[in-house]
Amino acid sequence: MTFDYPARRARLAELLPAREVPALLVTSPVNVRYLTGLSSSNAAVLVGADGSALLATDNRYIEQARTLDVHSVEAPDVVGRLMTPGAGIEAESMSVATYRRLCEGQDAGPVPLGPVVELLRAVKDEDELALLRTACELTDQAFADVVTRIAPGMTERDLARLIENRMTELGADQPAFDTIVAAGENGAIPHHAPTGRELRAGDLVTMDFGARYQGYHADMTRTVCLGPPAAWQREVYDLVAAAQRAGRHALAPGAGAKEVDAAARSVIEHAGHGGHFRHGLGHGVGLEIHEEPFLGPSRTGRLEDRVPITVEPGVYLPGRGGVRIEDTLVTREGGPELFTKTTKELLVL
Amino acid sequence: MTFDYPARRARLAELLPAREVPALLVTSPVNVRYLTGLSSSNAAVLVGADGSALLATDNRYIEQARTLDVHSVEAPDVVGRLMTPGAGIEAESMSVATYRRLCEGQDAGPVPLGPVVELLRAVKDEDELALLRTACELTDQAFADVVTRIAPGMTERDLARLIENRMTELGADQPAFDTIVAAGENGAIPHHAPTGRELRAGDLVTMDFGARYQGYHADMTRTVCLGPPAAWQREVYDLVAAAQRAGRHALAPGAGAKEVDAAARSVIEHAGHGGHFRHGLGHGVGLEIHEEPFLGPSRTGRLEDRVPITVEPGVYLPGRGGVRIEDTLVTREGGPELFTKTTKELLVL
Repeated sequence: MTFDYPARRARLAELLPAREVPALLVTSPVNVRYLTGLSSSNAAVLVGADGSALLATDNRYIEQARTLDVHSVEAPDVVGRLMTPGAGIEAESMSVATYRRLCEGQDAGPVPLGPVVELLRAVKDEDELALLRTACELTDQAFADVVTRIAPGMTERDLARLIENRMTELGADQPAFDTIVAAGENGAIPHHAPTGRELRAGDLVTMDFGARYQGYHADMTRTVCLGPPAAWQREVYDLVAAAQRAGRHALAPGAGAKEVDAAARSVIEHAGHGGHFRHGLGHGVGLEIHEEPFLGPSRTGRLEDRVPITVEPGVYLPGRGGVRIEDTLVTREGGPELFTKTTKELLVL
Repeated sequence: MTFDYPARRARLAELLPAREVPALLVTSPVNVRYLTGLSSSNAAVLVGADGSALLATDNRYIEQARTLDVHSVEAPDVVGRLMTPGAGIEAESMSVATYRRLCEGQDAGPVPLGPVVELLRAVKDEDELALLRTACELTDQAFADVVTRIAPGMTERDLARLIENRMTELGADQPAFDTIVAAGENGAIPHHAPTGRELRAGDLVTMDFGARYQGYHADMTRTVCLGPPAAWQREVYDLVAAAQRAGRHALAPGAGAKEVDAAARSVIEHAGHGGHFRHGLGHGVGLEIHEEPFLGPSRTGRLEDRVPITVEPGVYLPGRGGVRIEDTLVTREGGPELFTKTTKELLVL
């Protein structure tokens, strides 16, 4: 897939006057990729407010760079080669060490800026959405293929490996992130890493995983029950499902990041479980698994059209277990489009 | 695997007086993991020259943190919670944005330091080496299982997926990095990402890959030939193999990073191909795929005992193809221990 990189750089150039910089030195690898198509571990691109652009990378990547529709230069020290007086730098990703080097002997030093390219990246075009849709389809399919094999006696680690292998067999580049499988009491830990704990009858089992396809990251969580659920398990599941539904319904171009979070969170709070849901409701997905925008009680900003985002409330009961249900969706005028289509009924296995 | 984290922190504390800081605020995720055992995307640990240590993480990871042998506190802003006047910070990994926030309103601001924990990490203990040895065994085994299936008509991407799937089936956590498969003319690009190009008779095919096992990263490259090699292919292969042998033989505790590089590079230069080998000879491996120490013409420092490191010379002929041969080894008194044991004879398939 080739994107219209010059158009992306032109949109960036238009944002620079308001930031009061003549140019932005882009160093975050994923932002360099977004603006030029070059995937590398050592590259930078200087984009001027006048629409000019120059890419620098070292000898390992220069052959690839020369095939792209942007001027490029070979330099081992890519930031030193590109820096111009008073240019903006990406303060969230540039290291202190690099910044101090750029400041040395400069009258007009670099100007640290917050997210700029990240804000452009939040809104996807239809070609990007097609890739993300495929990533989500691979994720759904892997779940469908694996869910019938979930059984007592297999370990969290076995199940994580089954899911990940199935995704890559189906055509994923890679898992989009390290798969979470949390059984029984481990379900109370939102970011539990899979262990040798065996699944047992009576466990709620939470699986949080996704496929990466041509660089785009899917993200989905489902919680299933091994055997008939106890009353508390059914109650918590239904609560999280209701909160997740409220969150999905609140997604719309123009909605506030805080309001969407509150739509789901208030459902959980009214049931007395506010203290058991202590992370944000969701996050953007795209070339990164966590990217702008973020949904949470203290997040500002409003959603735009064509923003892929997760909705993933959870209730975590220390020592007992937990439930999380997560979809990847994209905001649309007229209502969000659901990308992860696996059922959200409680599966009793 | 549980390591002796207090001993690691004690070794770090001993290094701080020479850096003239009362404490080091460790924020690099892999360094936090090395010092405490906590794997997370938001944690920091403050280690004092007096041997004290305090870990901070947010509510997603605090349950895990409380199981560790270090005092921990829950805080959404982990660096803000831990920072003390005049503490060292990790300049290579801390972002400019975080640094500027720490500097605000401080009389004794943070002191940017270069690698400290990274230098400790370079030397492995025998438990770490056992994990890395297993990672390399999985890498060798995956190659042995896949090599018989390499044939004209499959694409670079097919072959990369075969290798990666086999590694995870055998028990790897994940591939240690995105697998490189470069066929024919693509072999001239050291960091070529696999494409839909089909393998053809007469191609040299370079595969650079490795397994990650319990966090430890293996790294190996082999170049094979599809059908009988042309004279130039055999010549380049034998040259790179000779250079790689010279590099391996130069590995020893006390050897200079520059001298080891030169041992291999001089072989290639004497054959008139110096301009076709334009990257460093190797790098440390461990909890990261690229870590201290690095071998290259401008690298300083000397190797110590028990340092796992790669030796990976290559010759890249633009438009024609290339050869790279890489092993992971560990320095030992009495001669390096070879971890990746796949043959380095030219395999003609």
